[in-house]
Amino acid sequence: MREYGKIYRYLDCLRKFINMPVNLTAPDPASLLPVKGVELGFAEANIRKTNRKDLLVMRLAPESRVAGVFTQNRFCAAPVLVCKDHLAAGKGIRALVVNTGNANAGTGEEGLMRARRTCEALAGLLNIADHQVLPFSTGVIMEPLPIDRVVAGLPSCVDNLREDNWAHAAEAIMTTDIVAKAASRKIQLGGKTITITGIAKGSGMIHPNMATMLGYVATDAVVAQPALEAMIRHAVNRSFNCITVDGDTSTNDSLIFIASGQAGNAEITEQSADYVALRDALTEIAAVLAQAIVRDGEGATKFMTIEVEGGKDEAECRKVGYAIARSPLVKTAFFASDPNLGRILAAVGYAGIDDLDVSLMQLYLDDVLVAENGGRASSYQEADGQRVMKQAEITVRVHLGRGVAEATVWTCDFSYDYVKINADYRS
Amino acid sequence: MREYGKIYRYLDCLRKFINMPVNLTAPDPASLLPVKGVELGFAEANIRKTNRKDLLVMRLAPESRVAGVFTQNRFCAAPVLVCKDHLAAGKGIRALVVNTGNANAGTGEEGLMRARRTCEALAGLLNIADHQVLPFSTGVIMEPLPIDRVVAGLPSCVDNLREDNWAHAAEAIMTTDIVAKAASRKIQLGGKTITITGIAKGSGMIHPNMATMLGYVATDAVVAQPALEAMIRHAVNRSFNCITVDGDTSTNDSLIFIASGQAGNAEITEQSADYVALRDALTEIAAVLAQAIVRDGEGATKFMTIEVEGGKDEAECRKVGYAIARSPLVKTAFFASDPNLGRILAAVGYAGIDDLDVSLMQLYLDDVLVAENGGRASSYQEADGQRVMKQAEITVRVHLGRGVAEATVWTCDFSYDYVKINADYRS
Repeated sequence: MREYGKIYRYLDCLRKFINMPVNLTAPDPASLLPVKGVELGFAEANIRKTNRKDLLVMRLAPESRVAGVFTQNRFCAAPVLVCKDHLAAGKGIRALVVNTGNANAGTGEEGLMRARRTCEALAGLLNIADHQVLPFSTGVIMEPLPIDRVVAGLPSCVDNLREDNWAHAAEAIMTTDIVAKAASRKIQLGGKTITITGIAKGSGMIHPNMATMLGYVATDAVVAQPALEAMIRHAVNRSFNCITVDGDTSTNDSLIFIASGQAGNAEITEQSADYVALRDALTEIAAVLAQAIVRDGEGATKFMTIEVEGGKDEAECRKVGYAIARSPLVKTAFFASDPNLGRILAAVGYAGIDDLDVSLMQLYLDDVLVAENGGRASSYQEADGQRVMKQAEITVRVHLGRGVAEATVWTCDFSYDYVKINADYRS
Repeated sequence: MREYGKIYRYLDCLRKFINMPVNLTAPDPASLLPVKGVELGFAEANIRKTNRKDLLVMRLAPESRVAGVFTQNRFCAAPVLVCKDHLAAGKGIRALVVNTGNANAGTGEEGLMRARRTCEALAGLLNIADHQVLPFSTGVIMEPLPIDRVVAGLPSCVDNLREDNWAHAAEAIMTTDIVAKAASRKIQLGGKTITITGIAKGSGMIHPNMATMLGYVATDAVVAQPALEAMIRHAVNRSFNCITVDGDTSTNDSLIFIASGQAGNAEITEQSADYVALRDALTEIAAVLAQAIVRDGEGATKFMTIEVEGGKDEAECRKVGYAIARSPLVKTAFFASDPNLGRILAAVGYAGIDDLDVSLMQLYLDDVLVAENGGRASSYQEADGQRVMKQAEITVRVHLGRGVAEATVWTCDFSYDYVKINADYRS
């Protein structure tokens, strides 16, 4: 490795050209709908590199409700701790600030102070309270956040706050992402048009520790706080909690839902007739963003949907789905288009269901039944498996034969490029 | 991948020359001591490939005691099920038979019949009962065991049974292993010389599904059955259960202890003064063999010892050790000699200790303190971390600051070769 370092660094420059995401392109800026009450402003703050957008501010209307879910990693980053504090304070959130280039993780007490200093600086510019700001960071771990550069960049962000800046915002939060990730849609609720727009970043975890999945989904609907929190719990289990690129979870992962309260609809509670419609529309945008992260997985050449059904409960279905999705052997077999079924069965076998009866299990690749009765299906022809494995998008379906619960996991394959990207020096 | 398949297959032929195990060479046959009461015979049975030893028989003296531990994978292979049956029958084990080239896993009822047929054929040749034979298989999954070739090869194995065949035996069980794995030692117990010799195979999981770790450790000591079973439980937790190459566990993993009862010592029970000495000597051989499997890990360029201490119990230390050892990001950073500490801390953070206080944790690379108080250690210099990371053998030491329990995990790095080897077609 050491002697090839220079060559790999040159090759890495070519990554954006030779290593395309799986069926994913940057969104058309015109397709990203402004959300009334949500303004976005960005800056080039030189946090780690020059000549790139690396700082984003979102200003929210006073009526806004905000809900968040965060990484379960015990080594969670300073901004995650501050976000939880500020949400718990219940004073209302009026602004978000996101920097790239530095994750402010593994930075101890000093890191907490710098995350709070960021909030304080933005609060001063916007004339709101420190507790009304949520901070987010993504980038290298264990290096001090260059707080002076963050603070110096904030006025430019505030100067260009606009409701139609979503495409710039999606770019401003990118790290090793090859393409920006954003999606938008309108729905009708009780005679009112409701807009939903979301952005996300993440491409696996990550070239030189540019870790972290961040997702922000905003709507102009009027939503009660408990309803918004119920919606994000529902959505995260069907979106960001369904994806794995390499199984490593980050110190900074965050998903935020914003309801700016500007659409003039009757406030939506969990009892409202419109509750499910809005929840499902938010979930759909979150799922599109989460899948985009997998499609842009480091070195990814294939997108796999792992559907596990027939389980006793959702938790065990998820265990099986993740065991398959995380297995380096399964992921390299997909890269090679090799219908190496034993690897999938072995992963099911070690997923942790102690009383699994493998003779009741069925395994499908798309619609091809490949295994049942504890072994290869009698109808299975290797050519059929081979045909499916050559596709860029593949569904692996496992029926556990134990119950009626189900879960879905999305993942990508492991390629040479994954190792190359992640073995490269921090530079 | 598809268009490069041919080139990769050529390159793969070179693997044995360009991709050397980490500080591991084949054992000197003269160093492998015969164990009285244990004879070994091998054959070239053409099970999957020609011109290679692929069938091994071990014949044991009637006084032998045998204990085994097996994969926890629910998709365990037919021979594993038969081994458990035959050990449970309690009729005494008189022979073992190991084939490579085919794992007889994911083969349903027919696979069980073929594993039993193998035992029956060997029992007939040795004039013992079917239940006195343990069968083992390693190789491709989900293909029918070519039982006729196995049975046809058995007479040659029996014809060349010898106590000094350990080096051949180590070769006969190899699959993608680059070097044979074997170790031997003598100890004195109560005035008697006791010999211990063991062999193992495995190199990660695995070029075209040549999965499975197998280990066989034999001593000529007289050992009571309950004592031998206590010894193997002790040993497996300090050897084969401490290793991970890629985190995938196989359908066929097995470790067997044999005490042939020929050394003339007083029978060793759990109460014997000599119990601990013999247990520790068997454990040492098992650990050497387990480490050899990691050193020969697919594409491995480095050998890492993950020591986790200061935990509340051994289980949580093991969780943390495996989280680090299994992380693709940590493994690629080691390959790159990059002291990318954030990746190790992130792995500790998601290992599953919900009440971990990261501010009490310390992280060392060899003797270099790199992190404490939730962040980078103030004394840490990147040059020190870099120096350690360039070594071929590295110790990662994590102190959790919660208690006095500890655990050790051995692993290797992830290189380009890992992906190449595992993406290659079954051939």
